[in-house]
This record gives sequence, C-alpha cells and structure tokens, in this order.
Amino acid sequence: MKSQIVCKFGGTSVANAAQINKVKDIILQNKERQYVVVSAPGKDSSDTEKLTDHLINIATDGRHFRSQSKEIDAQKSYKHVIEKFQRLIADLGIEGKDIIKNLEKDIKKPIPEGKKKDFLASRGERYNAEIVCRYFNKQGILSELVLPEDMGLVVSEIFSNASVIPVSYRNIREKLSTVEGVSVIPGFYGMTAKGDVAVFSRGGSDLTGGEIAYAIEAALYENWTDTDGIYQVDPRLIPEAKVIPRLTYKEIRLLSSKGFDVFHYDAMVNCKKRNIPIKIRNTNNLASEGTLIVSERVPEEVVVGIARKDNIAYLYIERDGAGESISFVHDLLSVIKDYGIETYHYPTDRDDIAILLNQDDMVGFAKDIKETIEKEFNPDTLEFSYNISILSPVGIGMKNHPGVIAEAATALKEQNINIDIINQGPAQISFHFGFQNYYADSALKAMYKTLIK
Amino acid sequence: MKSQIVCKFGGTSVANAAQINKVKDIILQNKERQYVVVSAPGKDSSDTEKLTDHLINIATDGRHFRSQSKEIDAQKSYKHVIEKFQRLIADLGIEGKDIIKNLEKDIKKPIPEGKKKDFLASRGERYNAEIVCRYFNKQGILSELVLPEDMGLVVSEIFSNASVIPVSYRNIREKLSTVEGVSVIPGFYGMTAKGDVAVFSRGGSDLTGGEIAYAIEAALYENWTDTDGIYQVDPRLIPEAKVIPRLTYKEIRLLSSKGFDVFHYDAMVNCKKRNIPIKIRNTNNLASEGTLIVSERVPEEVVVGIARKDNIAYLYIERDGAGESISFVHDLLSVIKDYGIETYHYPTDRDDIAILLNQDDMVGFAKDIKETIEKEFNPDTLEFSYNISILSPVGIGMKNHPGVIAEAATALKEQNINIDIINQGPAQISFHFGFQNYYADSALKAMYKTLIK
Repeated sequence: MKSQIVCKFGGTSVANAAQINKVKDIILQNKERQYVVVSAPGKDSSDTEKLTDHLINIATDGRHFRSQSKEIDAQKSYKHVIEKFQRLIADLGIEGKDIIKNLEKDIKKPIPEGKKKDFLASRGERYNAEIVCRYFNKQGILSELVLPEDMGLVVSEIFSNASVIPVSYRNIREKLSTVEGVSVIPGFYGMTAKGDVAVFSRGGSDLTGGEIAYAIEAALYENWTDTDGIYQVDPRLIPEAKVIPRLTYKEIRLLSSKGFDVFHYDAMVNCKKRNIPIKIRNTNNLASEGTLIVSERVPEEVVVGIARKDNIAYLYIERDGAGESISFVHDLLSVIKDYGIETYHYPTDRDDIAILLNQDDMVGFAKDIKETIEKEFNPDTLEFSYNISILSPVGIGMKNHPGVIAEAATALKEQNINIDIINQGPAQISFHFGFQNYYADSALKAMYKTLIK
Repeated sequence: MKSQIVCKFGGTSVANAAQINKVKDIILQNKERQYVVVSAPGKDSSDTEKLTDHLINIATDGRHFRSQSKEIDAQKSYKHVIEKFQRLIADLGIEGKDIIKNLEKDIKKPIPEGKKKDFLASRGERYNAEIVCRYFNKQGILSELVLPEDMGLVVSEIFSNASVIPVSYRNIREKLSTVEGVSVIPGFYGMTAKGDVAVFSRGGSDLTGGEIAYAIEAALYENWTDTDGIYQVDPRLIPEAKVIPRLTYKEIRLLSSKGFDVFHYDAMVNCKKRNIPIKIRNTNNLASEGTLIVSERVPEEVVVGIARKDNIAYLYIERDGAGESISFVHDLLSVIKDYGIETYHYPTDRDDIAILLNQDDMVGFAKDIKETIEKEFNPDTLEFSYNISILSPVGIGMKNHPGVIAEAATALKEQNINIDIINQGPAQISFHFGFQNYYADSALKAMYKTLIK
C-alpha cells in the first residue's frame, strides 16, 4: 500500500456541487489518491450557519443557537439540513431520495440524551460521504462508501472529544484492503465499543484522515482546504508573504498556535510517528504546490516563518526571592492550574516573575486569582497586564546560527518598539518577543522585512 | 538620632591590630559614626583558617575540620584562638588578661549539644568587640561595649539560622539611647527568649548592622569591607571595570546572586523598608567613595552593570504540548522541588521546556531526577546540559529604552557567539543570556564593551 495517498477534504472543499466537482477532478488527477475522507458540507454563500451547527441545534432542541442569541429554532435547522442535502443531490445530478429518507430517519431516531448530540453532529459527514461516493461512481471513479462502523473505527466513550482506540488500526487496514477502487470515508466520528456514535473535537475530520493514513501506512496524507498552505506570516497583514514549501512537524507546531492550527493537531501525531508526510493543499488553487510537512528537511533559509499570538495577558509578581526560590514558581502555578488557565512563558528575575496566560481563559477569574495570590503569597507587587501579542520567528535554520535575535531586536530598535518580554529556549528553533498589542503589526512588518524578505 | 551612622566592619577590617587602627581612624573621621558592629577577627597572612571555624571546631570536638579533611584537632584550634586574641591585645597595647580569662571560661563552659556550636561560634565577635571598644577608649574615643544580651536583641530559637524577633527593635532603641559615646556591638548573634546564644547564618554580622540601623532609624548604614564597592563587571576579568557609585536595592539584588552577595541579603530587607541607604566602603582604601545603595536614583546610564552566574545546568524536556499545557510545568517543577534544587529560568516553547538549575544542588540527583521524569512524564527527549553561564545586564535605565538587547545580541553576533537561552521579563531592568561556559568570558567582554564602556 506504500504509495497510496489519503486525501481529506475540508468543509469548504465539499460545500456545494461545484466544489465536489473539483474534488472529483483532484481524485482523477492522481491514481494514488485511493482514500478520501469527507467533511460535512461547509458554509457557502447561501448559508449563514454551518450544517453541523444546525444538526447540533436539532439535537439540543434549539438551545445551541439560542445560547448564541440566534433566532433559529430546531424546526428551522431541520429544514435547512434537508434542503442543503437536497440541493447538493440535485446539483450533482445523482439519485438521492434514499439518502434524504435515511437522513430524516436518523434525525427522528429516539436516542438518549448525552449520546444524541454526537450522533446528530456526525450526520453531515455521514451523508456527505455517501453523496460524494455516489457522484464519484457516476463520474466513472469506482468508489465504495466505507463508514466508521463498517471498518471498526473504535473510539473511547468520551462524547464530543473521543479518541481512537488502537485496535482500530488493524480493523481499518483489513477493511480497506478489501475495497475495490476509491474508499470514501466520512470524517469526524467513530463508534464506541457499545456501538454508539462519538465524535472527535470540532475539526476532527483531520483526525480521521490522520488515523487512516497511519493505519494503512500511507505514502502521503493530503489535507485539502481553502488556503494555499502555511504562510511565512499572516498574509492579511503582509500580502507579499509566500507559502512555505516545506516544514518539519516541529516547525509547523511552532508556527501554528492552539486555536489557530491549520489543521487538527492530533491528526499530526500519528503521521509523525510513522514519518508520513502531510501536505496542505488548496482545493481552489491547484497551481499552488501547498506546504509539505516532513520529519526532516535541509533548511535553505534561517527563519522560515513568524508566528503571532494575540490576546495574551500576564500576571506580574514581585517578591524578594520569587524567581530563585525552589517552590515559589511551583506554588504560584498551582494557583493558576486550579483555574484551568493555559500558561505559556515564565520570564523570571531574582525577585519577580511574569506568567503569560491565555487572556480568554482568564475572563471572570482575574479578581479571584488576584485575591488568592495576595492571600497566599503576600507579594510586593501584583499586576495583570492585558493585550500582549507574541511574535515568534521559527526555523530549524536558526539552530546554532548566532545573530537572528540580534537582527530581530535591531529591526525593532530602529522602529523604536519596546520589547516587554523575551524568551528563547535551548532548542533554538524559535524565540518569542512579547509586545503591547498596538506594537504588534509594525513589529511583525519590521521582523518580516529583516528576517524573511 | 536621624543623622547617625551604623558602621559594620567585616572580618578583614578587624583582622589584626593594624586593621583595627584603620577602623579607629574611620570612626574619628566622622562624629556621626556612633554605632560600630564588629565581626570576629578575619584571617590575615598568619592564619590558615578563620577564627570562627576554629571555634566551631572546638565545639564539635574536631569534627568540623575533620569533615573537610583538615588535620586540626580541637586542642590545636583552642590554642590558635587564644593566641590570636593574645596577639591582638598585645599588638594594640591594651589591657586584656580578663578578656582571655573570660574567653577561656566560655570555651570550657559546659553547654548542651545543639546549643554549644552557636555559643562558641559567637565568641569571636563577642570578644573582638570588647577588644575594639577597649582600644577606642585608649585612643580617646569614648565607647561602650553593648552586647546583644545587654540590649535585648532577641532571636528565634533556630540555631545557626536565627532571625530577629521584632520586640528587639524597641529594646535596641531604648538601650542605645542611654549609651554615651560610641556603641561597640558584636555582630552575628542574638539571644533566644530562653537566654541561649543563637547565631545568624554565616556572614550574619551584616544582619546585626542592618537590624540596628533599622531599630534606630539610622541616616546611613556603612558596610566596611575589603573591596571598593560593587563593580560594573568582575574586575578580575575586566581590570578597567569601575565601581558603581549608586545603585537601587533592586539593582544590587540583580547584580549579586545567591552565594555571591556582596553582603548578607537579609541585612538589606529592613533598611529597604525604612529607606536607609547602605554604603559599601573599603577599610583599606578611603580614597574610594564606595557604592551607595538607595531606593531610587536617576540613572545617567542605561546598563549599570553585568551580573554573571556560572555553574548552571539545565534540564531540557520535549513532549508535545509541554510548554502550553496547564499543568505540565507545574508538575515538572514539583519533581525538582522534591530534591530541593534551586531553579532560575524556564524558557518554554510549544512542545518543550528547559529549566535552569543550580548545578551544585544537583550533584548526586541527576540520575534519580531523570528516572523520575522518564517515568512520570514519558517525554520524547530528556537531557541535562551542564556548565552554562548566565550573563545579565542590569540597570533601571533600561526600562522603556528599546534597543539594549539588540546591542548586546549584535555584539555577540559579531563575536560569533551562540546564545543558548534568553529571558527577559516585563520589569525590563535586566535580561539574561545563557551560554556554554566557554563563551562566557568573551561574551562578557563583548557586552561590557558595547553596553557599558
């Protein structure tokens, strides 16, 4: 199977008939694209909400949109889902009455609370895969619909955040080896040992693709989306920024950040284990070669890209010996930990420490945290600072290449930009500058110009 | 009392008659020097060991030196102590038979184990103060010996690491207000509530001076030693380095490091609280103005000095999500904490973290720590790296003065020196560069030239 390719198509790539037709062309273009993982149809210009949100809204009897102050009741969502699929079927010119009938049956099926949301949420992928498969066959691509329940994709019983149980890999390998032609597989869900549908976290179709690539030891995992690949810097700010042709797994981890991952992180873990390269491609722009993610590469440049993270806060504490006592940092982190707040960097001095935090995680807790720390640590100073942005040049070429930080800092000095926080660890494939948010745009431009352009 | 000065003289300043004569001149020079805190006589060219070590050796029946593989038994130490004081008395030309007799009585006094070491360790200060006082009076300086037991300097009952109990301040103030002329006070010890002698940690005469300055709200605390003051950088490496005329309490904390403090840190805490300036002076070089430590100053320069810390190790751990998980850093630090190892900086990335540690604290534990971490965290990579040096430019002038780090990094780049670790917190009065030790000398020279010279 070694030369086969697993292709996962994201929501926008299968949002309507025109998009699904592009997918068909992509499959036709390369015979090694034998495994197609399909997302639910994404939003196109005719939709205001995602299909999966409509399905969850049905499962929660309208609470899902109500909690977002949107006036869309379960009935409206139901209508939308059916119409979306009907339109797809009609536009693709395939036979699909049975699909609509089965979908309606699924939606009306009595399912216990706690399992219902996952079951309904998965229906977008489930039936879209069937539609894509039918269209492929109509267009002369011999294809077979392979459902998670058919191939034994077994997941843990943690609803809405399931993970794959290792027995699945053998099941998947065996099942897929029996398929003639292209396997079309719905992403996003698996079956618990008890036979219930459980979904991965949102964006989990990436994960399905990664798990299948791992199971069959694919030669390549193609992740088809609506962007040309990973950019050196945010192209909305710097339009001339280029797509990076090759990145290591490590580099892409540093270039993307939690919540802004180009694709589902867990999808990468197993590919990394088996050294399966991942390619980010754009369904809408075949001319772009995309970004290939590999375990090793020979860097031609020093800095390959600059990551940006906004909405960072920091907690600053001054107390004699804070930064050098054996337990102070530990004890302080145990307070933060209790609030479930993500922390990033810990710049310390002899008598002070700052802890960088996810600002959004902190909403509603700042006062509490402040009081707890006042009480437990009696610091000389205790301050929260908000709206910090972190810019992080990344590149394996930086390792043992002295001077990158000098160039970056000099570029900022010339712009008279003050760096609040600096952090660089011994791996030396990235470093981090923290600024007040209002500096971040011009800092990014200056650093891009000096380090990359 | 506001204009009065507390002077503390370190061991070398009172090591022999010639030195004590210099002390007398210093006191004569300024009438406000009304409170003189005296250390035990320090080592001079005729001694191989410190007097206090001899006293501890007597208290431990020779174990103290034996544990250092030195062949000096308690009897030899006894002889040395008596002879040292006899020589002092003879050279100063004062009457002192009663002092020797009382000292011998003290040494032979039956004292319970656990209290004996502190009692004997304090005798160097105790009798040296009496000798200095007697010499002052002989030289026409009206002086009174004021012992901790006379003035109610009450300390906690933690032997060898006692701390002052606040009731002492009132006692001290009241007692000293009754003294006519100069008060000569032995440093290093106080009395527990039960009436036992307990000493501060080694170097604790600084603490006595600081506590007295605090108690009487002195105008100035002069710390007389054998160095001209705080240097910009280590003058052994860079002979042209100058003494810094003024530093804030914060700056001196950052310029000195635990184990390499110019004077006892706890001595500063109370002075800081009452805004009492501290002056480091050289008994052997009155021409040098020394270094004045104050709470605020207007910086004329950007970087005032560069601190250096050698013998740092780091623990480097790679595991997906290590640097951004809520509890990973906390849980990791709790392992280190269990071994009582001092930690300094925590440079993190998304998937890795390094913890900088005191290398000496780690001796004998590295294997254990490695095994514990392997077991508990199952990291992808786990490495110890040794012989790291940290250079830290310091200066309140750096705050909001962009570009210092750019200049420093550029200077290193020009020397082709690789920076392993970088850390700068939001206070921005210092930043830290970590290098392999073999780079440290040339890095310090390059940074000195660029930032200070």
